[in-house]
Amino acid sequence: MNSVASSLNNRGIRLSNASVPVVHEVEIMDEAGRKKTTFIPGERSLTIYLDKREVVTLMTLGGAPEALVLGYLRNQRLVEFPEDIESIQVDWETDSAAVKTRRSHVDIDALTSKRVVTTGCGQGTMFGGLMDEMAQIKLPDGPQLGAEAIIDLLEAIRSHETIYKKAGSVHACAVFERLGGNQVRLLHLIEDVGRHNAVDSISGLLWLEGRVGRDLVFFTTGRLTSEMVIKGAQMGIPFLLTRSGVTQMGLSLARGINLTLLSRCSGKHFEIYNAPERVVLQSRHDN
Amino acid sequence: MNSVASSLNNRGIRLSNASVPVVHEVEIMDEAGRKKTTFIPGERSLTIYLDKREVVTLMTLGGAPEALVLGYLRNQRLVEFPEDIESIQVDWETDSAAVKTRRSHVDIDALTSKRVVTTGCGQGTMFGGLMDEMAQIKLPDGPQLGAEAIIDLLEAIRSHETIYKKAGSVHACAVFERLGGNQVRLLHLIEDVGRHNAVDSISGLLWLEGRVGRDLVFFTTGRLTSEMVIKGAQMGIPFLLTRSGVTQMGLSLARGINLTLLSRCSGKHFEIYNAPERVVLQSRHDN
Repeated sequence: MNSVASSLNNRGIRLSNASVPVVHEVEIMDEAGRKKTTFIPGERSLTIYLDKREVVTLMTLGGAPEALVLGYLRNQRLVEFPEDIESIQVDWETDSAAVKTRRSHVDIDALTSKRVVTTGCGQGTMFGGLMDEMAQIKLPDGPQLGAEAIIDLLEAIRSHETIYKKAGSVHACAVFERLGGNQVRLLHLIEDVGRHNAVDSISGLLWLEGRVGRDLVFFTTGRLTSEMVIKGAQMGIPFLLTRSGVTQMGLSLARGINLTLLSRCSGKHFEIYNAPERVVLQSRHDN
Repeated sequence: MNSVASSLNNRGIRLSNASVPVVHEVEIMDEAGRKKTTFIPGERSLTIYLDKREVVTLMTLGGAPEALVLGYLRNQRLVEFPEDIESIQVDWETDSAAVKTRRSHVDIDALTSKRVVTTGCGQGTMFGGLMDEMAQIKLPDGPQLGAEAIIDLLEAIRSHETIYKKAGSVHACAVFERLGGNQVRLLHLIEDVGRHNAVDSISGLLWLEGRVGRDLVFFTTGRLTSEMVIKGAQMGIPFLLTRSGVTQMGLSLARGINLTLLSRCSGKHFEIYNAPERVVLQSRHDN
């Protein structure tokens, strides 16, 4: 269960590989008194220590803990560049993630002093003036995404083997690459008990890979609340898709930065809430 | 929109009444290019000031802001008794909730120093050693709840006028009173963009009313993650029901404190995950 294997990736960051089995079989009773077995997702605490300073405890499925830590540090602006990180060691014996940076001194207290508990289904935390940052972001016009690519993307999600299919009670986030000619390719799909964890993990992976957002499409099963739109915008991704809905502030933020927002995406159905000019409804096969 | 009306309740707390309209009409485009109007829930920030000290910013639907603030203060252990609170004034001009206590001095820094970002769909915050508290809680055996009462309860939820029906993208929490003889009565139903906000608001209302948990049944549309079970347990409610699922830590906590946990509750269907002896599946009409 406790992986201590670690490897240097192409950023020179030493990462453990502590993904844990995430589904548990339990015995339940139905309304007729019949005993059954079913599956539920795991949920474990992971306390992040940044240069030996305790930063936060996240509750997570544990499927991609190193990516989660990376994305959390990125999205909370606790680390500026991936290269600043020397190593991330996740240890499930102690439910901890030890992050070592190459920085000589950073005032973590100052960085973590302002806390915003965001919507979500929960009360997420964000440090610092992320809302201020949003005022600086303006996504350029284009690129475009065709309806066929959107439908292919939704089919790729539907047919993917997931924890959700087995146990329910998790949220998924996925990121796709636009290949042009109405094609998309799944890069990452991450599930977690919290959708903020899932988006943070995706963000961590993209950061590690040095991918820019312009050619990406982001999908989530969860609602696009303000925090989700902010995180999408921070990754520079022009397309945010959700199987679920959108809140008023999520939409308002998307309008402010020219982000294409699609809601109620399922099967061949989707609703465009903002910047529809990026969506090609006719089968023009242009890009 | 900005209510400044306030009233003294039976606890002698002066509360504003700043519930705001929570659904917005927006124009969207569907996959065939047809323009439509639809409704989305509001989402606004609410910064809590406790005796002029900034504590946190919550993102909320704004339907029951005073109850939310009360429940947040209760569940984060920032206020010990409702009587300690002199007033809560919510002002949407400044998106703030000013809480005035009758306490001469409390070390808020110490209270807020330990942060746990909990699962949820988000990364909720909880201060202090709530997990330690859980080790102290053990719900007594009994009372019992009949299957008919459970089905009546689910029907009451289903037929209730909700934001969800109009706009989606919100979670509901509700609390019912067991009346004996297989009867239940809806006391409160609260919707919010975050399920943690909804449970906090319910918790705040019960605190204000001085209700103990033994005769109550709690229902949520959201998943029963660790934090939801902890909050249910803190209210002393022996029955937690969800339309959704359960995580492994949520179940583990429920087992530890002898809490009856029902999952996948919908229509006439439910699954009992823990303490089934409190559920009367035969129509015995006992209590």
